[in-house]
Amino acid sequence: MSTRSLSRRSLIGAAASSVALLGVASGQTAPQVPDDPTKVQGRPPSDLGDRSPFEAPRRTPAVTTSQTPLDLLNGIITPSDLHYERHHAGVPAIDPARYSLTIHGMVDRPTVYTLGDLQRFPSLSRIMFLECSGNSGAGWTKGPPTGTAQTLHGLTSTSDWTGVLVSTLLNEVGVQPGARWVLAEGEDAAVLSRSVPIEKMRDDAFIAYGQNGEALRPEQGYPARLMLPGWEGNINVKWLRRLKFGDRPFETREETSKYTDPMPDGSARQFTFVMEAKSTITWPTARIGTMPGPGAWEIRGIAWSGRGRITRVEVSTDGGQTWADARLVDPVLPIAHTRFLFPWTWDGSSEAVLGSRATDETGYMQPSRDDLVAVRGTASVYHYNGQQTWRVAADGTVTNVYAA
Amino acid sequence: MSTRSLSRRSLIGAAASSVALLGVASGQTAPQVPDDPTKVQGRPPSDLGDRSPFEAPRRTPAVTTSQTPLDLLNGIITPSDLHYERHHAGVPAIDPARYSLTIHGMVDRPTVYTLGDLQRFPSLSRIMFLECSGNSGAGWTKGPPTGTAQTLHGLTSTSDWTGVLVSTLLNEVGVQPGARWVLAEGEDAAVLSRSVPIEKMRDDAFIAYGQNGEALRPEQGYPARLMLPGWEGNINVKWLRRLKFGDRPFETREETSKYTDPMPDGSARQFTFVMEAKSTITWPTARIGTMPGPGAWEIRGIAWSGRGRITRVEVSTDGGQTWADARLVDPVLPIAHTRFLFPWTWDGSSEAVLGSRATDETGYMQPSRDDLVAVRGTASVYHYNGQQTWRVAADGTVTNVYAA
Repeated sequence: MSTRSLSRRSLIGAAASSVALLGVASGQTAPQVPDDPTKVQGRPPSDLGDRSPFEAPRRTPAVTTSQTPLDLLNGIITPSDLHYERHHAGVPAIDPARYSLTIHGMVDRPTVYTLGDLQRFPSLSRIMFLECSGNSGAGWTKGPPTGTAQTLHGLTSTSDWTGVLVSTLLNEVGVQPGARWVLAEGEDAAVLSRSVPIEKMRDDAFIAYGQNGEALRPEQGYPARLMLPGWEGNINVKWLRRLKFGDRPFETREETSKYTDPMPDGSARQFTFVMEAKSTITWPTARIGTMPGPGAWEIRGIAWSGRGRITRVEVSTDGGQTWADARLVDPVLPIAHTRFLFPWTWDGSSEAVLGSRATDETGYMQPSRDDLVAVRGTASVYHYNGQQTWRVAADGTVTNVYAA
Repeated sequence: MSTRSLSRRSLIGAAASSVALLGVASGQTAPQVPDDPTKVQGRPPSDLGDRSPFEAPRRTPAVTTSQTPLDLLNGIITPSDLHYERHHAGVPAIDPARYSLTIHGMVDRPTVYTLGDLQRFPSLSRIMFLECSGNSGAGWTKGPPTGTAQTLHGLTSTSDWTGVLVSTLLNEVGVQPGARWVLAEGEDAAVLSRSVPIEKMRDDAFIAYGQNGEALRPEQGYPARLMLPGWEGNINVKWLRRLKFGDRPFETREETSKYTDPMPDGSARQFTFVMEAKSTITWPTARIGTMPGPGAWEIRGIAWSGRGRITRVEVSTDGGQTWADARLVDPVLPIAHTRFLFPWTWDGSSEAVLGSRATDETGYMQPSRDDLVAVRGTASVYHYNGQQTWRVAADGTVTNVYAA
């Protein structure tokens, strides 16, 4: 029964390293476990589960952000406690019993909704990604050579959101003729505010109170936030307390001094809402340091687009000279992380330059860094979606390079 | 700005109660929060998130089970720390570096796989429910009158699982002619063992190492478990350490003295693998105690089938005299929890008897309790999938009744 087949030796040799795929933290002391778990009664059921002590995936907390460890995760749903964070004055503590959302301005019936009111309306659920507009921004400067998928691209996450369509509330309050824009305002200490075109509010905007089956997490806007499918993270205003209808943009700080895109001609694009198609390989990346060995491997990654479904992901292992289709993993949902898989054999001694490019249902293809910079220049900090390239050196070392 | 529209008063009056939809724990002391969150810097980003202190969804730990609070959840993904538990000798503590899976018996190349080996093979991800065969078993005795959706039906949960197809491994080990059944054995103190027909292993069986994007949780089989889509929970052997191929069933304890279904004629059905179509309303249920008020509400629930997609859920508010189609929420995935929604107006003074019945893609419809008992009798403890009925009394009290 304990026969170890010689035919499997090449796989077996790589075992210890590839366990790191799922996030065993390096440097931690191994927990004590029984030599033979079948000889010891296990722990009883609990009211709330926890991770194995051998698993410690973590975000990367900084001053105003914390990134999702994309390169430690599989699947399309981001665990709620690993969903990326980005806030402008910390995470406010809000009592749901005292929460309210006011809808006013150019409406016939200004109304204050409690959380219970919002939860009572006909509901919807939607599996959808959110991405900070600054995600991948290091790409504008070619990025730090030691970046990982987490530190370079970890400001994107996917959850199963539940809430009420804004259009349902608009039927209640009665929007007046001439209303064109809506101010969305948060209850954090930044009082984060953005202007939203009324068409988006009428189309697919919703107010979420649920995340992955339960209440929103505090970092994602508890108890309720605005959701604008496919649009840059900050305009999906968290801790939403007010929607004011008007006839023009409100020109808030977050759409004038921040969150605009300087262009090569000296102008600045404003209201660049949509997050365009992007992808990144999540294995192998700089996280693993060095390839565990030669032989058959599976290149894995995620792709997403604010304009709808991902229809194709191509992978190159020769620095973009040739490309081949990766396999997309069902379900492929609009405006959601989509997994891709690509079989690859590494000979153990040759350099390989790995990259991916996503195409979405509009036909748009994620550009190379050069093609992106030709249009956008390098003065921006937002909306970088150039291809991510990872170099596997002849000795197996894996590093980040932006340009092939 | 603080105008409260008179037209909304009926909704507003219900607010405090309907907040309970998302799980504010009763009886807990309300956490202290600022009067005005916009005047206080919030807490900084963290490496791992946590729930709002106002939210405390919990499982119901007993000796060998712990149920998912279905009636506190929305969406189709069950948060991993609320996934139901069922184990026979506790949750073992297993070191992933020492984990192995042995495949032997009637195979050409008996092989031991490490976790790293399993993770290296071409992978798949699948959003899929697991349900204990004993879930809803109280229905056989008409159940306790105080049951909730959690205590009656909470041994079912849905996750996004990642792993490797068993068929991929079978190509490696070479199954011998004549092999018909496979013993699957766990590394827990019960050494839980079941016999699986080889056809299922060749079809869609997989070995999961990922759950909702990260490693399996210990209660769900860390570091690896067998997954048999649509089949009763216990045969999806957790902490999987061995697959032995043979020419007949192994007749283990868990398929002889346990997990068989006594029939009215005195015989017992063995190997009743598939979990048939079931549904339950999750709001309103006995959890809320009393309806928050009259007016427009949304009846909400989940449906699932081990045979594939849910194609239809019907709701009755008059004890099964009349039925109408509920709306199914996308994505409707095969062998996964599917949400349904149904608009309902309660007049505030009349009794209503609420029920749901699911139909799956094979055309099978969830039976009434009477129809189920006519075939199966009442001697079984497993595989109850009769309709769940909730009575709303004239005074608004909501209670469980199994038979309309």
